[in-house]
Amino acid sequence: MTSSENCVQVESDGRVRIIRLNRPDALNAFNDEQYDGVTAALSEAADDPDVAVVVITGTGRAFTAGQDLQQMGTPPTYNDGKRHGFTPFIETVEAFPKPLIAAVNGLGVGIGLTLLPHCDLVLMAEDARLRAPFVSLGVTVEAGNSQLLPLAVGWANAARILYTTDWIQAPECLELGLVWKVVASGDLMAETLSIAGRIAAMPVASLVTTKKLLLAARLEGTRAAREREQPAFAALVGGPANREAISAFEEKRDADFTNLAEG
Amino acid sequence: MTSSENCVQVESDGRVRIIRLNRPDALNAFNDEQYDGVTAALSEAADDPDVAVVVITGTGRAFTAGQDLQQMGTPPTYNDGKRHGFTPFIETVEAFPKPLIAAVNGLGVGIGLTLLPHCDLVLMAEDARLRAPFVSLGVTVEAGNSQLLPLAVGWANAARILYTTDWIQAPECLELGLVWKVVASGDLMAETLSIAGRIAAMPVASLVTTKKLLLAARLEGTRAAREREQPAFAALVGGPANREAISAFEEKRDADFTNLAEG
Amino acid sequence: MTSSENCVQVESDGRVRIIRLNRPDALNAFNDEQYDGVTAALSEAADDPDVAVVVITGTGRAFTAGQDLQQMGTPPTYNDGKRHGFTPFIETVEAFPKPLIAAVNGLGVGIGLTLLPHCDLVLMAEDARLRAPFVSLGVTVEAGNSQLLPLAVGWANAARILYTTDWIQAPECLELGLVWKVVASGDLMAETLSIAGRIAAMPVASLVTTKKLLLAARLEGTRAAREREQPAFAALVGGPANREAISAFEEKRDADFTNLAEG
Repeated sequence: MTSSENCVQVESDGRVRIIRLNRPDALNAFNDEQYDGVTAALSEAADDPDVAVVVITGTGRAFTAGQDLQQMGTPPTYNDGKRHGFTPFIETVEAFPKPLIAAVNGLGVGIGLTLLPHCDLVLMAEDARLRAPFVSLGVTVEAGNSQLLPLAVGWANAARILYTTDWIQAPECLELGLVWKVVASGDLMAETLSIAGRIAAMPVASLVTTKKLLLAARLEGTRAAREREQPAFAALVGGPANREAISAFEEKRDADFTNLAEG
Repeated sequence: MTSSENCVQVESDGRVRIIRLNRPDALNAFNDEQYDGVTAALSEAADDPDVAVVVITGTGRAFTAGQDLQQMGTPPTYNDGKRHGFTPFIETVEAFPKPLIAAVNGLGVGIGLTLLPHCDLVLMAEDARLRAPFVSLGVTVEAGNSQLLPLAVGWANAARILYTTDWIQAPECLELGLVWKVVASGDLMAETLSIAGRIAAMPVASLVTTKKLLLAARLEGTRAAREREQPAFAALVGGPANREAISAFEEKRDADFTNLAEG
Repeated sequence: MTSSENCVQVESDGRVRIIRLNRPDALNAFNDEQYDGVTAALSEAADDPDVAVVVITGTGRAFTAGQDLQQMGTPPTYNDGKRHGFTPFIETVEAFPKPLIAAVNGLGVGIGLTLLPHCDLVLMAEDARLRAPFVSLGVTVEAGNSQLLPLAVGWANAARILYTTDWIQAPECLELGLVWKVVASGDLMAETLSIAGRIAAMPVASLVTTKKLLLAARLEGTRAAREREQPAFAALVGGPANREAISAFEEKRDADFTNLAEG
């Protein structure tokens, strides 16, 4: 694994661009810097004519623990006139014009789950697991997943994932259709790069046109869903259930984190 | 089982509201009184801040045998200026703002099937079965199911269910995704109340916001589908195929009913 | 098998109309004559009150090898003021007002795959296989499949089918939901006519109304998808990737064809 001081690592394998979430000590939780780093890396890959396919994965033991809770509901503090954080990130993901493959190398929480229905293919390590804890945190669904999650796994499974906030183990993720393939942890990147490489051998103009046409059939709905979600989410942030839930969740997350670190 | 003179029984289990169709001698077939009773119970549960989740089930051996055929195409006879019957019922169901769980305790015919894609989760007794007999009755799909049934089970399965009007046994309902879980008949309410209770422990504001966001991504389409279905259905009621089919169906239903009563 | 000089054979089995693609020496590849023949046969079946269900299948060893590549991007050469070829064909298919069943008797390439999500039910011979080679040909998705294919098989499977252009064997087609039933090759027509006959016994007015209502919930989207696809496809035809890919594909197809002929 290449070492890096950056919270996002970028490398290329032929025409495959690999973007790695790289805050392993924070289980790759998204702060604004990481959002902005991934957004920049995605935009660069979209514009680069030598990139045909993009893979997103995480370093260390997690895919991503999700939104950094300290930042929940906090507008970016930058004063540079640029847009930062979650919204530019998800706008870039939801309209990404090239095949986008996720390699879920470890636990995915929050955006670690809701990112996946934006990806064309998802491969997952057999010991990884996913969770959408929004409702238990006193908030609600995000990232266009009020449209995309039922499309990906059906209404009942989407409802159950969101309402119960249960952890979902890799085999169930596969059965639900939330991921396309589950592989042994040690084979994850090789398997991902194998399918990514086969796709990257295709004519880029045809890949881009096909991805844009697939997106065109749902993108208006995805954006409308996200635009309904944002004020609804914001209205719940800081309410009594959210405050109480975050305290409890942070305690539990710290315990989980300790267990993971020790496990 | 609580005894009741009403065609709809309502009770609470913590923050779970249970609504039981209760015309067991008529296999819980919907007449206007039962439609209005369920509509009132749903509206009350939606408005009650102490209700987080609603369960709908039937008493006796059926979930519901569907629309009372004597009433098919007959406008309500009430003269009280209020709206009655099917339309207010389905309008209430299709936009229901809290998690709605069906416990299919026995046979479901007509609306006994088309109600299910409106529910967030459906549990089904292993000896129950479902049927959408509309086409064989000379009428057509209803209750927004021209949109919702393909979403729930895919186009081919929706088409086959509607075109053939075959009975669908519980294991196939599970395989198709028409129901979420099949359980032994004796465990149905315990399993249903277990998942309902786990969801009901979540913050109600988050559950309601999440349900409304999920609905927002499909509700306009559901309503448009239902509004196309209603005149198309009405145009077929009383036609020669409908008259002939109802006579034959009533004979068969009476025979089925006799078999069930004796079985 | 009835012999025929026509590239489309039409026969009836009770209220079931059977349309057979009949250019077996060309693996039933579509030229304008075959498009026009199927379009005419479908229109006649739609208008005939004695036809309740339509089956489409192929003669010989292929379902259809797809668009005749010699004609790709070539406007029809007829000078009779009528519309010809692919567009009237797909417009007729996408809005077909009666149950439409495909019996995939052998390999299906291109429109041989993208036709299937337009059908209500698809039965497939166990030794048949399908492929959407558009991207490898330097072109893109067609026939409304930027909407329909994700609806039929989910986003990830649609993306993978289109991006990789891999052959899909019958068991995987079944698993993906691209087909409804896989049967032994020798049983294909008997099984198809069995389900077609059961549906054809239903009141035609109810079948037509039900099919139209099901279509109404997606048809606007299908047409919009197709109208986005057509200029995008045309913009890629004749480009360098397309020219190079067609040469390579034709060599490979000739080899495949030789293998099939010898196999």
